[in-house]
Amino acid sequence: MNTNQPLESLKTSGAVFFIFGATGDLARRKLFPAIYSLYREGKLAQDFAVVGLARRPRTREEFRLDVHTSIQEFCRYSSDSIEDEEWLTFAEHFEYQSLDINNVDGFRELCVLTEELETKFNIPGNRMFYLALAPELFGSVSYNLKEGGLLESAGWHRLVIEKPFGYDLASAEKLNEQIREVFREEEIYRIDHYLGKEMVQNIEVIRFGNAFFEPLWNNKHIANIQITLGETVGVEDRGGYYDSAGALRDMGQNHMLQMLTMIAMEPPSRLLPEDIRDEKVKVLRSLRPYATSDDVKNNVVRGQYTAGEVRGTELPGYRQEEKVDPNSNTETYFAARVFVDNFRWAGVPFYIRTGKRLPVKTTEVVVEFKSMPTNVYLGQKHKLEPNLLVIRVNPMEGIYIKINAKKPGTDSQIEPLAMDFCQSCMIGINSPEAYERLIHDATKGDSTYFTRWDEVATAWSFVDRIAAAWAENSGDIETYPAGSWGPKATEDLLAKDGYFWWPVNGQDEDNVVWIKNH
Amino acid sequence: MNTNQPLESLKTSGAVFFIFGATGDLARRKLFPAIYSLYREGKLAQDFAVVGLARRPRTREEFRLDVHTSIQEFCRYSSDSIEDEEWLTFAEHFEYQSLDINNVDGFRELCVLTEELETKFNIPGNRMFYLALAPELFGSVSYNLKEGGLLESAGWHRLVIEKPFGYDLASAEKLNEQIREVFREEEIYRIDHYLGKEMVQNIEVIRFGNAFFEPLWNNKHIANIQITLGETVGVEDRGGYYDSAGALRDMGQNHMLQMLTMIAMEPPSRLLPEDIRDEKVKVLRSLRPYATSDDVKNNVVRGQYTAGEVRGTELPGYRQEEKVDPNSNTETYFAARVFVDNFRWAGVPFYIRTGKRLPVKTTEVVVEFKSMPTNVYLGQKHKLEPNLLVIRVNPMEGIYIKINAKKPGTDSQIEPLAMDFCQSCMIGINSPEAYERLIHDATKGDSTYFTRWDEVATAWSFVDRIAAAWAENSGDIETYPAGSWGPKATEDLLAKDGYFWWPVNGQDEDNVVWIKNH
Repeated sequence: MNTNQPLESLKTSGAVFFIFGATGDLARRKLFPAIYSLYREGKLAQDFAVVGLARRPRTREEFRLDVHTSIQEFCRYSSDSIEDEEWLTFAEHFEYQSLDINNVDGFRELCVLTEELETKFNIPGNRMFYLALAPELFGSVSYNLKEGGLLESAGWHRLVIEKPFGYDLASAEKLNEQIREVFREEEIYRIDHYLGKEMVQNIEVIRFGNAFFEPLWNNKHIANIQITLGETVGVEDRGGYYDSAGALRDMGQNHMLQMLTMIAMEPPSRLLPEDIRDEKVKVLRSLRPYATSDDVKNNVVRGQYTAGEVRGTELPGYRQEEKVDPNSNTETYFAARVFVDNFRWAGVPFYIRTGKRLPVKTTEVVVEFKSMPTNVYLGQKHKLEPNLLVIRVNPMEGIYIKINAKKPGTDSQIEPLAMDFCQSCMIGINSPEAYERLIHDATKGDSTYFTRWDEVATAWSFVDRIAAAWAENSGDIETYPAGSWGPKATEDLLAKDGYFWWPVNGQDEDNVVWIKNH
Repeated sequence: MNTNQPLESLKTSGAVFFIFGATGDLARRKLFPAIYSLYREGKLAQDFAVVGLARRPRTREEFRLDVHTSIQEFCRYSSDSIEDEEWLTFAEHFEYQSLDINNVDGFRELCVLTEELETKFNIPGNRMFYLALAPELFGSVSYNLKEGGLLESAGWHRLVIEKPFGYDLASAEKLNEQIREVFREEEIYRIDHYLGKEMVQNIEVIRFGNAFFEPLWNNKHIANIQITLGETVGVEDRGGYYDSAGALRDMGQNHMLQMLTMIAMEPPSRLLPEDIRDEKVKVLRSLRPYATSDDVKNNVVRGQYTAGEVRGTELPGYRQEEKVDPNSNTETYFAARVFVDNFRWAGVPFYIRTGKRLPVKTTEVVVEFKSMPTNVYLGQKHKLEPNLLVIRVNPMEGIYIKINAKKPGTDSQIEPLAMDFCQSCMIGINSPEAYERLIHDATKGDSTYFTRWDEVATAWSFVDRIAAAWAENSGDIETYPAGSWGPKATEDLLAKDGYFWWPVNGQDEDNVVWIKNH
């Protein structure tokens, strides 16, 4: 929430963006397109420069061509042709330098280049270092940025880093110490790109901007909350990293717990970044820890996909994937029953699940409201479905609510109907990519949607207990065929509370009267 | 709400339907089509008969042809061709008798005909007398029904009567006494066809079937409620009746106060007709009466339309209409600010308005929720619109809610969006006509959606005070051009509370992001 920023400040103050890992996938798919979109929307003016950095040698022209290709392929704006004057004006801001991260001399060269660019484009010394690199390199880069003199300019210096931020609390602490030797906490922007998603940011507005929802947002009115982050892909070419991480570390510690905090947090005293992050960390601290291995066993399900068939295509099992240990016990699915032990949420289970090779790619939050009393009124004669508020985060963006109404033309049959608002279906709406918003925010110095160190650390503490229990009992991992909804036990997790997973977008929706506006 | 009826009882027990006024407009436009629809839906089986009654002579064949024509023109089901066996089977149930209402001999003949029909169709003596007549005739008909022996059969006897039920409390009481000499209160079904409308009946389900709304349905969460019943027509050929009645008596005393009771009533102890009507009459008793003429002046606006132009068509003023006194002070528009003085609604104004020659034909209820606090959070930076729940009754049926959400692609702009469920837009939905449901209900003995005497009387007491104040100050009627939204003063009614009339369906809706699914 950038409501602490006046709207006229949408254009950022000029800066040099250093993209470490400029020949990598993230830069190509996300970062260059994001920078171009910001430029096209007037959120970057002429006072910026981008320096691509990677080991690989590359001429300035080759690099600019890479950038152009990436924009053509991945940007929501169509790029100008490579001969257009508009394109040339934009591309002029891009430089490339081949860099050995462990060699401070290269950083000294970079410093010279940077000063030239700052002069050329009239940039006031602001420098953003975007590390699209493996975390093992964060320490060296930070150190050499300082040694190379890159942090001596007059403007601000910001470090933007990608997940994974460590493998557990201990490794995260170590990583953090390395960075903190060079950067102050407020200079560090830890990306969790789920926080950049339009509908995740909308959660705050929905909660605090609507008299419909704010009074109901507590354990008196809410029965349970379900957060699903389903992927249809397998591990793709990330088998090596993934096999050492698994779903809990890759998705749970960050995206899923972050979405949970947005749903559960208390209203902050002000809508300023630190106030909001204070509230988020309070939620993480209120998570009921799993005290014993049995607690973990009873509340957390892990699974690994086996071979399966999806729409006629045979898919390999996880252990058959490239770069994966054929005896791997790494989970590709996990679901957990989580409690937030505070006054607002006492007794309300939060069910979270994520997995690869699920039938549907979707991220959504279902807030299930308490049922109306069943022994009075309508409930005596009708099975009343509970009301739902569903926030669809990805890939479809929108919200819908499900309420009960009389079925038209019947005497008194009642059936659920969906009132739907589909953001991504609206004509003319072109939601910004998460990276676009986050880069923009970081440039403005708005850290609201970046994770603060205490959030990271508290989330690791919670997750480490699960990982530890799993390590003790490596045999209890369950399997599920690729293309299914995960292990059977995941249903039991809710069934013992009397609930079930609501169908997500694209799953069976026969029980809802749909208005087909998309 | 017929939840006290098992679903299998949808087919009514057999009965003879007596349509008094069988050559009139109501019979032709509403009653015959309703009977045919019920028949087509299997809600009437073979054990029924319809006897058309009017002064005009007419053969059985002519009458059956009338019925066929009416169905062809007005029924939501297309009728069979007049030669089809299906049609002949249905038409066989229709008889006609020319009847002088003041002559008991005709009723004796009718009794003989009725017994023949009951034998022929195996009908167990149930008789429904539908009086589509001027109220002045209700007394004579009732008396002669009894004298003519029509009320001596073994089954039930029910009297269905149309508005207006009196001109004021005194005349209504007199009318009621005449009827009550013959019929018991529970045998009398006073039609208010607004209560038969799908979405009016849905109000109960929305209120009591949804955890979203039930906890918010009170003065802690609701700011005000607006009920609009707009007509585009003028007085048409009803000038004579209308000029002696006016909008307050023609619409206010019945439809508008009835809709208000459905919105405002406490949850009944059971969903049985008498329990519901008990709660409705409690609302009417809680209406804050206008104690003085000044109270009326300050809280009620009356208007009369003058000549105007609507979409290029010149329309006459009310005083120029046929059968209207050229000096008439009859109101064709009224709006009132009403309070329900009970614990639930203390302090919540109900604004009601109705008029002829308004720009849009629509009936809808807008529930405006209290605004979120403006000095905290989003309200500091944004103008947050209040949340609305809108129930569209007629001609479009549906509900929508308006909430605030982040405008896609902006940093933090918030705008209202509508989540919409349009019943009448759904493919395959063919909502029953109000008359169809009400005739069906009356046949089943379900009086929920008919007005009980104490409701009628209490509504008249409330309305009589307004009429009395108006009679004292006949000069204060305001005018409005045909095709406008009524006198200026109607805005002031809300403005003094800090509110305004929300645009109704078809009016300016620029301030809402619409999902165009209709």
